[in-house]
Amino acid sequence: VVSPFDADTEVSAVGPGRWTGNVTDRWDIGVPNGGYVLCIALAAVRAAVQRPHPLSVTAHFLSPCDHGAAEIEVRVLKQGRSLATASAVLAQGGRPRLAVLATYGDLRSQNGPTLVTTTPPSLPPPEECGFVGDRPAAVIGVRPAIADRVEFRPSPASARALVARGAPAQLEGWIRLADGRDPDTDCLPLLVDAAPPAVFAVMETGWVPTLELTVHVRAVPAPGWLRAAIATRVVVDGLMEEECELWDAEGRLVAMSRQLARILPPQT
Amino acid sequence: VVSPFDADTEVSAVGPGRWTGNVTDRWDIGVPNGGYVLCIALAAVRAAVQRPHPLSVTAHFLSPCDHGAAEIEVRVLKQGRSLATASAVLAQGGRPRLAVLATYGDLRSQNGPTLVTTTPPSLPPPEECGFVGDRPAAVIGVRPAIADRVEFRPSPASARALVARGAPAQLEGWIRLADGRDPDTDCLPLLVDAAPPAVFAVMETGWVPTLELTVHVRAVPAPGWLRAAIATRVVVDGLMEEECELWDAEGRLVAMSRQLARILPPQT
Repeated sequence: VVSPFDADTEVSAVGPGRWTGNVTDRWDIGVPNGGYVLCIALAAVRAAVQRPHPLSVTAHFLSPCDHGAAEIEVRVLKQGRSLATASAVLAQGGRPRLAVLATYGDLRSQNGPTLVTTTPPSLPPPEECGFVGDRPAAVIGVRPAIADRVEFRPSPASARALVARGAPAQLEGWIRLADGRDPDTDCLPLLVDAAPPAVFAVMETGWVPTLELTVHVRAVPAPGWLRAAIATRVVVDGLMEEECELWDAEGRLVAMSRQLARILPPQT
Repeated sequence: VVSPFDADTEVSAVGPGRWTGNVTDRWDIGVPNGGYVLCIALAAVRAAVQRPHPLSVTAHFLSPCDHGAAEIEVRVLKQGRSLATASAVLAQGGRPRLAVLATYGDLRSQNGPTLVTTTPPSLPPPEECGFVGDRPAAVIGVRPAIADRVEFRPSPASARALVARGAPAQLEGWIRLADGRDPDTDCLPLLVDAAPPAVFAVMETGWVPTLELTVHVRAVPAPGWLRAAIATRVVVDGLMEEECELWDAEGRLVAMSRQLARILPPQT
């Protein structure tokens, strides 16, 4: 059985530096989720550079994807001893949807000092966590398709904050692919972008489209649930950053992301 | 009188989407500083997209620059109503040195909520701040050229930490272009990368080359000194992230950056 994540991010080579993929309707948040579409583009980058792990990935989102075929153009800029860097553009019908810049390598072959001064969120077990009521689906009016593919279980405090608002713009919870497929470095760029925006805990907004997302993958995750800590500290004139840290079942920080997004007004 | 920053980041159009610039020897940290070279590439991007402010910029550093001519190839991916996105590659003699992905717009035309929950560092006045002894020049053996172009004055606590080590990986201080040129959104991508690495406060290392740098410019800075807060929280197997926040003289957050860098062993 192929996991939906693997099936829906598969790409096929169609020429030198050219790949095709398919944007399915199973990862929608109204439109196809940005982290999901990014993972399609990264499947092509990974195939082009032939390195296992995305150390640093940035995507700029140019226009929302439609469901259906997508073409990915990859340009390998560096094939070094330990790292490779490529740029990619994912387009549909010739219209660029997102642009990617990514450095790949092998995290297992890095060496040097280790010093981590941040800690994973302390959470009740997953079975004691979860959304309260219809939040955050109420913001976009329907239960998004991605909710059947990615399971995010906020801590009781975060679940309450999503209903009551007025809390700090922070969310903590458990996250995994809903079919139980274990995390790897390929799906982390989706998972950092798959929980509700932390700003939902602090103010009434409409949807929050991502303009740019950068993900650092810091370790190969162990099997099992991931812990997520998501926060927004700086909102200026409707532009906000959001940071996400993901920790694996062995307590290791596996991904750090920051995105710049635009806050749309609440739907009336 | 043209400020060295403006003179040394100037570019000339040489064809459709093609520009030339010159990497001078005045911004070296051993090799030309990454943030400086990024600003040369961004001068070409800005000219290509015809928007005033870099909202989000990512650079992947492929190989260190030599002094001398550089060619910048810019591809405009989106010219939207309010935002434009372009990719760029800066090369020397056909060798790619850095790859850039940038979204430009006009920060003054954004609107929506503002909520900032982080605060600028509290610092003694600039005349009471500054390095102690020969730190951090000792790490690379010579006073770097960039020290004559960018003035960074660490707080007394940060100055002591750079000598004593063993402190948290955090540095705070004042920063500006050394000739007193006021900050603008063009030089912020340099200034987030121009102070010593915060990891120098916690461990003995060699140089710390940047692999990837992402900068969010959040506001147009007021004239005068900027306050910088620099921190590293996660070092894993010799790879580290570093974050920098810059605040202007009116107390506004003007830039946030995060980079992924590699810690080289101390020189023996």
